[in-house]
Amino acid sequence: MAQLTRSLDRPGLLVTDRDVIGAACRDYRGWYCGDAIALARPRSVKEVQDVVRAAAASGCAIVAQGGNTSLCGGSVPLANSERPSIILSMVGLNQVRSVDAASWSLVAEAGCTVNQVQNAARMVGRYFGLDLGSRGTATVGGIIATNAGGMGVVRYGNCRDLVLGLEVALPDGSLWSGLKALRKDNSGIDLKHLFIGTEGTLGIVTAASLKMHPPETMSATALLRVSSIEAASSYADLAFTMANGELSAIELLPVMGIRRVCEELLRCSPPIELSEDWYVLCRLAGQQSVQEKLESIVSHAMETGLCSDAILAQSSAQEEHLWSIRDSFSDLHKVLGPSFRFDYAVPLGRIPELYHQLCKRIAEIEPKFVPFAFGHMGDGNLHFSACQPQDGDHALYETKKAKIEAAANAVVWSLGGTVSAEHGIGQLHRVELSYQKSATELVLMNRLKSLIDPTAILNPKKMLPD
Amino acid sequence: MAQLTRSLDRPGLLVTDRDVIGAACRDYRGWYCGDAIALARPRSVKEVQDVVRAAAASGCAIVAQGGNTSLCGGSVPLANSERPSIILSMVGLNQVRSVDAASWSLVAEAGCTVNQVQNAARMVGRYFGLDLGSRGTATVGGIIATNAGGMGVVRYGNCRDLVLGLEVALPDGSLWSGLKALRKDNSGIDLKHLFIGTEGTLGIVTAASLKMHPPETMSATALLRVSSIEAASSYADLAFTMANGELSAIELLPVMGIRRVCEELLRCSPPIELSEDWYVLCRLAGQQSVQEKLESIVSHAMETGLCSDAILAQSSAQEEHLWSIRDSFSDLHKVLGPSFRFDYAVPLGRIPELYHQLCKRIAEIEPKFVPFAFGHMGDGNLHFSACQPQDGDHALYETKKAKIEAAANAVVWSLGGTVSAEHGIGQLHRVELSYQKSATELVLMNRLKSLIDPTAILNPKKMLPD
Repeated sequence: MAQLTRSLDRPGLLVTDRDVIGAACRDYRGWYCGDAIALARPRSVKEVQDVVRAAAASGCAIVAQGGNTSLCGGSVPLANSERPSIILSMVGLNQVRSVDAASWSLVAEAGCTVNQVQNAARMVGRYFGLDLGSRGTATVGGIIATNAGGMGVVRYGNCRDLVLGLEVALPDGSLWSGLKALRKDNSGIDLKHLFIGTEGTLGIVTAASLKMHPPETMSATALLRVSSIEAASSYADLAFTMANGELSAIELLPVMGIRRVCEELLRCSPPIELSEDWYVLCRLAGQQSVQEKLESIVSHAMETGLCSDAILAQSSAQEEHLWSIRDSFSDLHKVLGPSFRFDYAVPLGRIPELYHQLCKRIAEIEPKFVPFAFGHMGDGNLHFSACQPQDGDHALYETKKAKIEAAANAVVWSLGGTVSAEHGIGQLHRVELSYQKSATELVLMNRLKSLIDPTAILNPKKMLPD
Repeated sequence: MAQLTRSLDRPGLLVTDRDVIGAACRDYRGWYCGDAIALARPRSVKEVQDVVRAAAASGCAIVAQGGNTSLCGGSVPLANSERPSIILSMVGLNQVRSVDAASWSLVAEAGCTVNQVQNAARMVGRYFGLDLGSRGTATVGGIIATNAGGMGVVRYGNCRDLVLGLEVALPDGSLWSGLKALRKDNSGIDLKHLFIGTEGTLGIVTAASLKMHPPETMSATALLRVSSIEAASSYADLAFTMANGELSAIELLPVMGIRRVCEELLRCSPPIELSEDWYVLCRLAGQQSVQEKLESIVSHAMETGLCSDAILAQSSAQEEHLWSIRDSFSDLHKVLGPSFRFDYAVPLGRIPELYHQLCKRIAEIEPKFVPFAFGHMGDGNLHFSACQPQDGDHALYETKKAKIEAAANAVVWSLGGTVSAEHGIGQLHRVELSYQKSATELVLMNRLKSLIDPTAILNPKKMLPD
């Protein structure tokens, strides 16, 4: 610690206040609380490199942290680890270095929030295609480390698809400057993919060159009542085909979710008669009006019996209201009470099968659990929760956790799916990863980790299983 | 050799006929001719693994080959190499294993041609978004090894963006089975990116899970005469913005190219009065009619003075005719005579600057050279040739090659570009790569190569510089 303090003796760089460190040691959901001996707040790339070198020299682990909104415990240090940890807060590197409208790209430092990047793009008449609820807190470094998703994936891809280039501090303190803005570049191994989605275990992203898109000037939204989850899936297929690149979000909502959001959170009447189990919220967006196209998609869905009723937003206020229902789903878990939650993805079209099989297997283990699911129909991504009944014996239910998780994972794997669609692995899914991946794949991943971070100083015991 | 023959003693697996081997040793353009002691033609994944193991055991190098359409000498063995080479022809693994319309994906073996994949998608009402002139010969393995581009990149991305999963024979003969069909999967290091675009130097792709898209049922094409290369660039920006996901190709054509293709190859009148230096050929495509949208984009370009004349194809026959002009550009080089050719990419919007600077620098070295350039405006990808005058002293011109290449590369690098946009590195650009990449990047790439292929048996002395 003394050595560390000496080598990083610059005003504001090393925070040792226990309260500040303590706050940074706890994750967003309150599931993980680790220990760290210090919190570093570099304000330049050189200071990031200095911290990495100093940590390496003093045998400390480095846990890079952005907005600390990881849902898998990826951005907080381990508890009771033999090796002391330093939290490397990247929020001080928060400059949008350049915005180049002509090249449809911008360069943002790792500590910029998603919101900041969205605004920078908007200022030049462009659009940044990644959006998520935590946009005001989640950072560029964080969304790259977790290859974040969100509702725009059906149109713009995952975070990986929006990254043109990276600047990365490597575990030895050296810097890889790969901030290209090219749409085509076939010149050897595309190194950026090693650092995207690997949760700060191979390098510390200090800045990124990001793609921009045309603005979504005009939009149209419909909420459809569908006859079944199968009909929701067929509708997604239809919309994806007919919207032809103008589909900007397509979300599956369950009746319980809409009812309880409207009653308990938004305190409004439901926007549609809640007479079926499933609903689809769908937005088209473009430069010209897309209202007519959406109407034709919805008409087609009506005619073919996929949906029994639909409302098309008639104003942007109404559009916003419909989306506020979807946006409230992340708060809904607070009123739903304790649950076991899964962030699953399966191939497109297999969400109905996934849902039914999960319900069946979980009911076999504990019939009192209430299934609650919503998700991104355009990505095969279902957020599934097995909710405990409000008045049951929670201690008893908790004993069933391992069994339910094992059964649910077996279902998703049997459908060719993954236990982590968009949230990442962190601490939460490490063990499961060793079942999801083949021995060949695990060996290769571990050898890559050993090659790039031979002393394992970067975010140890995250992502990769032991 | 005897050991190799013994261990691969199965009918048809090992070809030792000198003529057959000789043909496979020559590249498509006739620029490279190497030596191989044998040609293996496996018909199953297991046979691929057997060949890799046998080659490793006998100390031979393995050069995987698909349709042998590499433009950089990537798919043929080295000449006069100390270590004998075996060509591993993948064309015998040519099954489309499965097509799943519901998941918008298919699994094709490495030896399938692009055409075969396009047809398989079409059979289920879907579309495979990669297209290139060599579609009847180029294979899935080849387009993945080179991360192929083509005219659809502006809409569907490079080959990398169309790959959902891979099956790869590793240098020790083991197999990584990663044929997922997921749109979201944040579960550790995304290994497939190590094998995409790395030209068979890290593994042998045996099969791929590929994305499909909605069919381009309706299309509309316009040929525009623009006032300058800057206007072409501005038009690309406008079309990308206004077409909003329905832009399916946008190509820059020079007056000389259109004139000579029409006069000498297609023997037709030019479809537009050739009174300016530059033309843009632009297609929109979708499920519904896109004619009106294209008309509005072209009108806008007229009103703002970007283009002085345009023709919109009035029938699919006329559309085909316009595109046949562009398709003939690859044959044009035969009539243009000897030239130095570059496959450059720069950030979007910088093509005009690239073009002018290249012309200037080359004219300083040899004013008699005629610049000839066309390219993919939506990707910042310019195919530039410095053509020798027909009646000049070719031997003298050839002596200027190194100087011209160095000057041209200096230009592209100064603009943040790359010497290889879509063709890859192969043997052709290895030395240049050592100038384009930083020491940090080269070290990392070489360490990755050593980690995954420690005995360097896969396509040695390709892609990575020494």
